[in-house]
Amino acid sequence: MTIYNFSAGPAVLPKSVLKKAQAELLDYNHSGMSVMELSHRSKEFDDIIKGAESLLRDLMAIPDNYKVLFLQGGASTQFSMLPLNLAQGRKAYYVVAGSWGKKAYTEAVKLSQTIPFEPILLASSEETAYDHIPQVDSAKIDKDAAYVHITTNNTIEGTAIYNLPETNGLPIVADMSSNILAVRYNVADFGLIYAGAQKNIGPAGVTIVIIRDDLLNKEPVLSSMLDYRIQADSGSLYNTPPTYGIYMAKLVFEWLQELGGLDEMEKINREKSSLLYDFIDQSDFYTNPVKKTSDRSVANIPFVTPSKDLDAKFIAEADALGFKNIKGHRSVGGMRASLYNAFPRQGVLDLIDFMKKFEQENQ
Amino acid sequence: MTIYNFSAGPAVLPKSVLKKAQAELLDYNHSGMSVMELSHRSKEFDDIIKGAESLLRDLMAIPDNYKVLFLQGGASTQFSMLPLNLAQGRKAYYVVAGSWGKKAYTEAVKLSQTIPFEPILLASSEETAYDHIPQVDSAKIDKDAAYVHITTNNTIEGTAIYNLPETNGLPIVADMSSNILAVRYNVADFGLIYAGAQKNIGPAGVTIVIIRDDLLNKEPVLSSMLDYRIQADSGSLYNTPPTYGIYMAKLVFEWLQELGGLDEMEKINREKSSLLYDFIDQSDFYTNPVKKTSDRSVANIPFVTPSKDLDAKFIAEADALGFKNIKGHRSVGGMRASLYNAFPRQGVLDLIDFMKKFEQENQ
Repeated sequence: MTIYNFSAGPAVLPKSVLKKAQAELLDYNHSGMSVMELSHRSKEFDDIIKGAESLLRDLMAIPDNYKVLFLQGGASTQFSMLPLNLAQGRKAYYVVAGSWGKKAYTEAVKLSQTIPFEPILLASSEETAYDHIPQVDSAKIDKDAAYVHITTNNTIEGTAIYNLPETNGLPIVADMSSNILAVRYNVADFGLIYAGAQKNIGPAGVTIVIIRDDLLNKEPVLSSMLDYRIQADSGSLYNTPPTYGIYMAKLVFEWLQELGGLDEMEKINREKSSLLYDFIDQSDFYTNPVKKTSDRSVANIPFVTPSKDLDAKFIAEADALGFKNIKGHRSVGGMRASLYNAFPRQGVLDLIDFMKKFEQENQ
Repeated sequence: MTIYNFSAGPAVLPKSVLKKAQAELLDYNHSGMSVMELSHRSKEFDDIIKGAESLLRDLMAIPDNYKVLFLQGGASTQFSMLPLNLAQGRKAYYVVAGSWGKKAYTEAVKLSQTIPFEPILLASSEETAYDHIPQVDSAKIDKDAAYVHITTNNTIEGTAIYNLPETNGLPIVADMSSNILAVRYNVADFGLIYAGAQKNIGPAGVTIVIIRDDLLNKEPVLSSMLDYRIQADSGSLYNTPPTYGIYMAKLVFEWLQELGGLDEMEKINREKSSLLYDFIDQSDFYTNPVKKTSDRSVANIPFVTPSKDLDAKFIAEADALGFKNIKGHRSVGGMRASLYNAFPRQGVLDLIDFMKKFEQENQ
């Protein structure tokens, strides 16, 4: 039975990448050692981390005045690191268009009880269960504030921001965890981009931070591990980085480059998600809860049947046929198909066939 | 050529563990998915993380009133998390017997500029380049303070604490990164134990924290990711944990249990290190810089030849013969043999043969 993994993250990885990792698991590049056994100060690992950075710079066309950091702790750690480094003594704006954006804002509020800065909720679609991307009124933005925070893709709710808001000159800071390397953004339009690896980059445990160098903190913050300047100055080697995860990320970057790069990947992703959206739209049985089609995520596609009972039946039958992890997030219910970069087109076609059959049998 | 990896961390892993990881890299337990692709909320990963915890509890005989956390960020993140959670509004004592203990103290001082608590240097051997474990005067300890911090094994300097200091009733908090699971400690003698995985546990990117439950913070701290209580209440799943690293740790714990457990491992480790110490002690050519034999580390054995030029020659010749990463830490110089759990006894015998030959050729 073919297994299709629709997990929202950790998620499916390219088969060819896993095969390469498997082949050299005990002996990396004739070193006689596994990548997991390499010293992070060794020549071999230096090639891996610099290679990974160089590939990512190529893929995303990252300008020279941006640093690329390989950190730990996930996007959730960035929720605190970000204001700690960038916003002290100032205002910071948050656009909340989903559960993760809400978490970023809530963590900022928590931090502001100890660290002097002022997190401000600039726009939110929480009242309508995040069924659309809220409009930003740039007239409300104080140009002396630190940044405007957005989430480019809402993993749980299935929406995305493709056109960046007007911010009255403030840097945009973005959680790009669930659509980094899936669609093209212009890095120069951001002050800082961060992303957990476990959707389009590699295994969980690596966090990518891309930061414009003039935004690096001038003063040390309360912990060296949470200090962008220290991490940047040490080339992500302030302490032992997650070496194996960084190696896996490099393999994924190589795979993406061989496939044709980010623009080609976006084309493939848009075609995959269009297949599913088009099928849902023509059906009277399935519904996508996102309000405006222009806000739809290319990466995460939630949908429901006419009832919760049928949703549960759908998930059970799909699972038995090898469509794994298609259950929606517990906060939303229904189903969710996460179609990340490594998710194969054939999996979408097979899912649609099953959806047709299920619709016929349960109408 | 046989490769022996003397790296101080990331370090050698058991071959059988790497082989098992390799065999199931593309298909874990007939799931059709790699462990790296498993959702951290899946049944399969739940079995992995609970299995890893259960094995570690068995191996170290961790009492039921201790929580086991699988975190990210390395010991370096614990340097801040520890006082943030345990010491607010109080004193905290530091025994500095090596470079890492110094870092733990320095980070505490940095944090204390923002968070109200008072880090106190209780004892230090810095003046003599950490060539011994300093004595602790328990009469100096205020019994209302939060803890006494020690480093059980000094990776860089090659010393270790086997007999815990008197602390006037305060909990001992220990960085056990480089000898956890190498020698037996009584967990109940500690309030909190933490360790980066990359020596005796698995790949870099996992941090183990073992905390007595009455020490869990009553009040939230400034970041949820840095909050022991939140991490404990969510079973280390507050956000996506480093799933593959935790899986590797489980495999290493299984290997250790099959080998006979921690007491058997300690016996093997003591024999391995005795072989090398005995050889160094009988030689007029090689010297171990540690002052007292009772302070000697079982895990990390630094040594020098009569001159820096000969040290450099030794390292180059050793490297060419497959004795990798035997160069001492840049702050100390000379050589260092890290003989962690997975380092084979034969590697010590072969090293001694080479050392004899080198001594004869260069006397």
